[in-house]
Amino acid sequence: MPGLSVPFTKGHGTENDFVVIEDPDGRYDLSPAQVAAICDRRAGIGADGVLRVVRGRQVPAWAERWQGDPDLWFMDYRNADGSVSEMCGNGVRVFVRYLLERGLATGPEVPVGTRDGLKPTTVLPDGRIRVQMGPSRVLGRDVEVQAELHDHPPMVWTGWRVDVGNPHAVSLLAASEADRLDQLDLGRAPLWRPADAFPAGVNLEFVRVTGDRQIAMRVFERGSGETRSCGTGTCAAAAATAAARNLAHGGADGPVTFVVDVPGGSVEVELDGDRTALTGPAVLVAHGEFVLPDGTV
Amino acid sequence: MPGLSVPFTKGHGTENDFVVIEDPDGRYDLSPAQVAAICDRRAGIGADGVLRVVRGRQVPAWAERWQGDPDLWFMDYRNADGSVSEMCGNGVRVFVRYLLERGLATGPEVPVGTRDGLKPTTVLPDGRIRVQMGPSRVLGRDVEVQAELHDHPPMVWTGWRVDVGNPHAVSLLAASEADRLDQLDLGRAPLWRPADAFPAGVNLEFVRVTGDRQIAMRVFERGSGETRSCGTGTCAAAAATAAARNLAHGGADGPVTFVVDVPGGSVEVELDGDRTALTGPAVLVAHGEFVLPDGTV
Repeated sequence: MPGLSVPFTKGHGTENDFVVIEDPDGRYDLSPAQVAAICDRRAGIGADGVLRVVRGRQVPAWAERWQGDPDLWFMDYRNADGSVSEMCGNGVRVFVRYLLERGLATGPEVPVGTRDGLKPTTVLPDGRIRVQMGPSRVLGRDVEVQAELHDHPPMVWTGWRVDVGNPHAVSLLAASEADRLDQLDLGRAPLWRPADAFPAGVNLEFVRVTGDRQIAMRVFERGSGETRSCGTGTCAAAAATAAARNLAHGGADGPVTFVVDVPGGSVEVELDGDRTALTGPAVLVAHGEFVLPDGTV
Repeated sequence: MPGLSVPFTKGHGTENDFVVIEDPDGRYDLSPAQVAAICDRRAGIGADGVLRVVRGRQVPAWAERWQGDPDLWFMDYRNADGSVSEMCGNGVRVFVRYLLERGLATGPEVPVGTRDGLKPTTVLPDGRIRVQMGPSRVLGRDVEVQAELHDHPPMVWTGWRVDVGNPHAVSLLAASEADRLDQLDLGRAPLWRPADAFPAGVNLEFVRVTGDRQIAMRVFERGSGETRSCGTGTCAAAAATAAARNLAHGGADGPVTFVVDVPGGSVEVELDGDRTALTGPAVLVAHGEFVLPDGTV
């Protein structure tokens, strides 16, 4: 086989999948074209993104912006198209699972450097991984979301705007609309009004209450379409559900926890005032070597 | 990592992608659930199918139905859902590339056993692989095909029925309709009339002539939707194009060769009377070990 050979591991968190590349010596600072070749689901391995495992000292912004520990493991996250992204709630769990299985961290506390700052994580006794995500800010219930349905007319909801570092609009289905979640046709992009509410686009969640502290969610991610899971989306969905019920949390009220079922599995979201913790599974499924195609090396 | 570890290689032919599992000793006679777990594009490696590399003697039907050489390498092909399939024109090239790179065959002639019988293949000096596919039978031009377009009204063509071991309906776009190939919305299934023309379903090709012996094709595969490439579909497209032009081939007329451009690359189809040869690239991109998830072992 010609071309540069790159050792990789593939894993996923609630079916949000990643190629992990361990690179403590900075040998694989991949170009956007190389990341895209790896993430190509037909001609490459296929993934939603690449998680490069580096030391904090290899990333100048880690010291300059965050004054981060240069010895800490840093998650250099790239989207499937090769662009850089700050943070990924499902990706960081896969990153921690990798550190644990390779003996690069011991747990239960595993701090991870990201372009969004230091992310404390905890490995639970049952193997799930909890990530401190920062605040989920409910900004109001003031946007109209229109979605297409299979075999039914389109529907409109008044959605909750939630900021989880990125923008979300959460539509809470009424009890009488429970069937509509499965009937949503998210092969077609939902619309929102006013059109200028989200100048940089928005992630759209649709939520059905399935229990006292349990919700089911589907998500249409900006730039990706419907996905099997979205970490920040589950936080936004839980925060909007709590707001709609006037559930106080944080301080003397203590935390509120929701189970959030997504098409790719289940996670738990704990709301505690300004803090949001996302807990879920992370699995490594394959190890190997990828041969970078000619023209990308 | 728990679970059974299976060594694998991933490769593709014009972006029809496969996981190759070398299994001369019959250790990995995978269940449908295991094949589906491997081919899952989020929770597994992801592929259109699995090519298990076994000896003819491991497959009873190879001796019973085809009186095949028990020492020959046999392509045990499984679809992504775990079901068995007879043959795959793009898959057999990837299979041969694997045999060559692993030193299991030397070429240039590499016979391959399949559930559709013995498939002679030839490795060309430029590295492409030629597969003898059997006949492409043009049955008539007597079906109506209706397809949706983006930003345009639906269109109807009178399609050619072609049998390449599996059923095809080929719509040849007129020169004035050249733009329509890119405008086709194959996210929505085309329809055909009469409805009973293809009781077991059909693969639908849409073809634009781009040169004297060159065509561009998109395909909607039964059970899969639009794909990046379909080996038998390219044969059907070439055969219909030749029939529409009254191009005689075979015997004293000699062969007729078309370049067929598909979204995933380019292949060549040689029509020579009852024989069809499909020539194209095959690339191996990764080697590794896959951990079968609990519950499938």
